[in-house]
Amino acid sequence: RFDGPDSTTGVPVEPVVEGLKAVYKNKLLKIEEDYKYAAFASPTLNNVDFDAKPMVLLVGQYSTGKTSFIKYLLERDFPGGRIGHEPTTDRFMAVMYGPEKVWPGNSLAVHPDKPFAALQQFGMSFLNRFEGSECKSQILKSLTFIDTPGILSGEKQRIGRSYDFPKVVEWFAERADRIILLFDAHKLDISDEFKRVIESLAGHDDKIRCILNKADMVDKQGLMRVYGALMWSLGRIFKTPEVVRVYLGSFWDQPYQYVENGELLEAEEKDLLADLRGLPRGSAVRKVNDLVKRARVLKVHVLIIDHLRAQFGFSLFTNNKKKQEQLLAGLLEQFKEIQAKHNLPMGDFPHVGKFREKLRGFAINKFPKLEEKTLAQLDEVIKRDIPRLMQMLPKGDEKSDMAGQPVP
Amino acid sequence: RFDGPDSTTGVPVEPVVEGLKAVYKNKLLKIEEDYKYAAFASPTLNNVDFDAKPMVLLVGQYSTGKTSFIKYLLERDFPGGRIGHEPTTDRFMAVMYGPEKVWPGNSLAVHPDKPFAALQQFGMSFLNRFEGSECKSQILKSLTFIDTPGILSGEKQRIGRSYDFPKVVEWFAERADRIILLFDAHKLDISDEFKRVIESLAGHDDKIRCILNKADMVDKQGLMRVYGALMWSLGRIFKTPEVVRVYLGSFWDQPYQYVENGELLEAEEKDLLADLRGLPRGSAVRKVNDLVKRARVLKVHVLIIDHLRAQFGFSLFTNNKKKQEQLLAGLLEQFKEIQAKHNLPMGDFPHVGKFREKLRGFAINKFPKLEEKTLAQLDEVIKRDIPRLMQMLPKGDEKSDMAGQPVP
Ligand SMILES: Nc1ncnc2c1ncn2[C@@H]1O[C@H](COP(=O)(O)OP(=O)(O)OP(=O)(O)O)[C@@H](O)[C@H]1O
Ligand SMILES: Nc1ncnc2c1ncn2[C@@H]1O[C@H](COP(=O)(O)OP(=O)(O)OP(=O)(O)O)[C@@H](O)[C@H]1O
Ligand SMILES: [Mg+2]
Ligand SMILES: [Mg+2]
Repeated sequence: RFDGPDSTTGVPVEPVVEGLKAVYKNKLLKIEEDYKYAAFASPTLNNVDFDAKPMVLLVGQYSTGKTSFIKYLLERDFPGGRIGHEPTTDRFMAVMYGPEKVWPGNSLAVHPDKPFAALQQFGMSFLNRFEGSECKSQILKSLTFIDTPGILSGEKQRIGRSYDFPKVVEWFAERADRIILLFDAHKLDISDEFKRVIESLAGHDDKIRCILNKADMVDKQGLMRVYGALMWSLGRIFKTPEVVRVYLGSFWDQPYQYVENGELLEAEEKDLLADLRGLPRGSAVRKVNDLVKRARVLKVHVLIIDHLRAQFGFSLFTNNKKKQEQLLAGLLEQFKEIQAKHNLPMGDFPHVGKFREKLRGFAINKFPKLEEKTLAQLDEVIKRDIPRLMQMLPKGDEKSDMAGQPVP
Repeated sequence: RFDGPDSTTGVPVEPVVEGLKAVYKNKLLKIEEDYKYAAFASPTLNNVDFDAKPMVLLVGQYSTGKTSFIKYLLERDFPGGRIGHEPTTDRFMAVMYGPEKVWPGNSLAVHPDKPFAALQQFGMSFLNRFEGSECKSQILKSLTFIDTPGILSGEKQRIGRSYDFPKVVEWFAERADRIILLFDAHKLDISDEFKRVIESLAGHDDKIRCILNKADMVDKQGLMRVYGALMWSLGRIFKTPEVVRVYLGSFWDQPYQYVENGELLEAEEKDLLADLRGLPRGSAVRKVNDLVKRARVLKVHVLIIDHLRAQFGFSLFTNNKKKQEQLLAGLLEQFKEIQAKHNLPMGDFPHVGKFREKLRGFAINKFPKLEEKTLAQLDEVIKRDIPRLMQMLPKGDEKSDMAGQPVP
């Protein structure tokens, strides 16, 4: 289904990711360590930062078919996944590739190879409602799915959940590559709770897609009505000028009830699958962009440090402490000198005040002298290694390359 | 087309209207005159108030197919009607039943049998852009269509029109039984000018229907997209909770371009025709309701006048002027006495202050004494004549009987 004849998942995305990892480990990591990049800018990257699959987050009211949708794409049941009439899924589930297994939330959140460490902030009451499910479905080699408990209405939602449900959804939304909102064509009602959740996702609207599921359960005109009513409501909930994409479909292993919409629903499903298939590439593009940006910022970082370091005298009698204070006070001037000397974009420079605070914790003269070959190595990464990896990526929709990019 | 096998236009709506006219002329008019009802409440009714056909107002951007739509329903060209690519219709046109003829706006606005007298308020520059078109198409026996010039964008709209276009549209909207907004599926863009016109029609949203015209010119998925985008926008323009009804169709005498939507478009056209077919009945229901309301208010009116009149002494020496002042000052008390005595709903009473002002212009003691038989006649109209006419109306959707009713 996912790897059909017009599939693009066969494209070599993994080699690119492996290449990035190698560039980072062999050419950047040592420099980051020498110049304490992590303390100044952002933490050292781990395997999981490279390896994590693009995440698809499913959100919707109960019984709209979130779990069935995942099962449909997996073409099989997944461990711990349950489907039913009443509110059924009672926890967040990360559905991933691996040997058949259910992971308790606790162990998932502390495992170094899984991208869920930050979930510990939501406490034990959440981790008890979090689970990993691994199995060897083909699509999971490309994507990780996050199944969620259906959104309930009114008091039920508030009382039934001992953790901050909207905050958890937001955490996943932040990290997800695709957020799919599910609606039930057969029973369309958008509760205030769901509306609030959608509104809280507004910042990520470039990642959001909607599915009007069970679309085969209504006739042609009925489908138009319910689809129209959905768009009418969505137009009010979203504040964006662009219309959000709604796919009509019926994502489970049953024949269509009203066959008259069959052709349309099949075309829609094809579009949705194509969109999902584009995610690994999009995610790889993002990783490439992130790493080149990181290398550029690192280059500026080492140039700043070295520029400052070089201003310390060699004499044993120099008052290093006083010199350091003096440099810190004139930091903005120093930045300007460096920028002019190396012709660097100002956007790659850190915030002066924050940088100064960080710098107080270090003796500038103790940083290693910047070797010509270190700088050459950084330039090589930026100008040759990463562009080369970028070229290995299959051609794609350039516009969607931008989508989902965090605003700098 | 309009009078197909499932047509309901054959139903006897005209006899009801004729009946109402007779009741009014024979049983109410004389009483209204005797008690100066027109001066207090609302003008005397004319033939045209009874005979005017339900009006269908068409509004939309240029080239969306408004004129073609009318031609399609008429199943023929109509005098003065022109169809074309560029902005074509350059005036308001009232398309009515009658011997083949084009009426200049001036003569239409002064003709006592036409319901357009009030249009004189918009001046000659408008009347020069107003025309009547009469021909003998069957559907015009039931409905009058108002074709309008297409809404242009930006400066074109403002400069090109020497009269207050939005105000004129509002005037027609106020009187129309149905307002149809046309959109072009092939080229959907909703200009700010059109948006503003739609917003100005917001108060009449129960009368508004939309048509997504030329819907056969896009394929299945394309149609869903454009329809979705339309609903998305309409949801933002309309403030109502109810979703406005959008009919998908292609209203001209050409075969469908994409036949794949044929079935849907045909079903939609059927629904739209059924809606239009319901208008004569709805309009008759409204006339019945209006007349029974008028009779009840008239009854209260004569009871008030008579109650006041009876308090004047018979002596020649009574100071009538003083008495009148005294009654006017205590008018609210008088109302309460009358209400209690005859057990009347307070809602049928006029506004005290306004009534007092009107009453100053009359000598109360000069009104005729209220005869028992006059009162009996009013009760007969309210309790027997009008309910009997109501029963003659074909059964219909009771909910839609309420739609379009002016809020009291
Ligand atoms: N495409 C479909 N058409 C019709 N029925 C469906 C479809 N998909 C799922 N269902 C049915 O709808 C019900 C709910 O399905 P499912 O449990 O997958 O929903 P869910 O969104 O995961 O619900 P919850 O939020 O409670 O976990 C089940 O009875 C399932 O069989
Ligand atoms: N259902 C349809 N499908 C495709 N084309 C159509 C359809 N109806 C009308 N047209 C074409 O669209 C153009 C505009 O039609 P028409 O003049 O009826 O529009 P209009 O809304 O009255 O425009 P205006 O506001 O300028 O008077 C014409 O060329 C007409 O042939
Ligand atoms: Mg579920
Ligand atoms: Mg026209």
